[in-house]
Amino acid sequence: MKTKVTAALLIIGDEILSGRTQDQNLNFLAKGLGEIGINLCEVRVVADIELEIIEALNFLRKKFDYVFTSGGIGPTHDDITSESIAKAFGDKLIKNTEAMAILISHYGAENVNEARAKMAFIPSQASLLANPISSAPGFRIENVFVMAGIPKIFQAMFAAAKTELNGGNKISSREIKISLTESIIAQDFSDLQKKYAFVTMGSYPFEGGTSLVFRSTDIKFLNCAFDEMLKKIDQNSIIKIS
Amino acid sequence: MKTKVTAALLIIGDEILSGRTQDQNLNFLAKGLGEIGINLCEVRVVADIELEIIEALNFLRKKFDYVFTSGGIGPTHDDITSESIAKAFGDKLIKNTEAMAILISHYGAENVNEARAKMAFIPSQASLLANPISSAPGFRIENVFVMAGIPKIFQAMFAAAKTELNGGNKISSREIKISLTESIIAQDFSDLQKKYAFVTMGSYPFEGGTSLVFRSTDIKFLNCAFDEMLKKIDQNSIIKIS
Repeated sequence: MKTKVTAALLIIGDEILSGRTQDQNLNFLAKGLGEIGINLCEVRVVADIELEIIEALNFLRKKFDYVFTSGGIGPTHDDITSESIAKAFGDKLIKNTEAMAILISHYGAENVNEARAKMAFIPSQASLLANPISSAPGFRIENVFVMAGIPKIFQAMFAAAKTELNGGNKISSREIKISLTESIIAQDFSDLQKKYAFVTMGSYPFEGGTSLVFRSTDIKFLNCAFDEMLKKIDQNSIIKIS
Repeated sequence: MKTKVTAALLIIGDEILSGRTQDQNLNFLAKGLGEIGINLCEVRVVADIELEIIEALNFLRKKFDYVFTSGGIGPTHDDITSESIAKAFGDKLIKNTEAMAILISHYGAENVNEARAKMAFIPSQASLLANPISSAPGFRIENVFVMAGIPKIFQAMFAAAKTELNGGNKISSREIKISLTESIIAQDFSDLQKKYAFVTMGSYPFEGGTSLVFRSTDIKFLNCAFDEMLKKIDQNSIIKIS
């Protein structure tokens, strides 16, 4: 088992960049990957432009263990993800018999018009990712999982993808919420980070206080750093520990 | 005036990538830039790792007219944005007298400890961006605006940045919401897109229907495409037009 497994997310969609739609897939994926010991290391959002998609994908798939994409696999002309991904792999789209059978079974043969049939065109080297919500499948090609943009479908496809992922060491996290501003504890916190290189410590201000977050794949170090920080903090300022 | 002005957003933060925090700045910025005729063309989210920040920033600032960054300018050890940005420009951090005066006036001289003073260290070539919420300023260096990650502060800093931005032609948008699935109108919609190259047309399914969005800097073409599409749609299926 690899100790550190990495992933990236490529969000494809003018609607995110125009502000029309608030992305929800990043946060869902980050949590879902964390639970199985995979680190989401980078996210990119690009427009519905073939060259942008190809360039971003080819960079990310070489750098990270897994890449997930979100958006652009529907039936309309602005859905260019499948075609772009095929090109990024030097592959081409073919009518996937299995995908076609799924669409026919869902819509009825007489209702699979040209636009719907477009969703059965998948890169020749790809395998399908089930879509229990609206049938049209996502797909996997090498280390890349191509999924829908609609959150409910993205989530269902991730459940399918998960069965194919090999996670690394699980990342545990602990948190101390205090009523002090972060500059009060910054020095102690920084000293502790220097001491515990295997624990990632982050400080996040919120209205009325600061949240100190400890993350590590090593529970022992995690707990040591956590306990040591707790001792340095005025107990009256602690709002919550978890 | 340039007709098309472009921008990118670089989100710096482990807390976004771990799923701990749901980003809100992308959506806010996308809308805010759209209002003044600036196209948000790409977004990247990277971890609190100096090399990642430098590489992403140097790529984005050369490709786009403006770059905005979000996160990592606080007082703690994990706030490495200012230092990374200085390095990306071959610059270095200096204690900015104006920033220091702002911190002293806000906290009182006796309360500006080392951690707080860190927030007055700004690249030597940068100018300040006011922070009316919690005083510690953001900054601008060339075409890059470095802003806080906390949404309320990010928004306040964007208000300050806005006075320095030169927008292009404003992008107008119109929308038709219909109760049909997108594959029903896909062919007509696609034909229309081919006819109107200056109008970007996107189709976004939602539960119970589809939203057809038309965007353009040219109101005349926008309205023509919109009206033509309206005529092709069964009037009973129209939920809303705007």
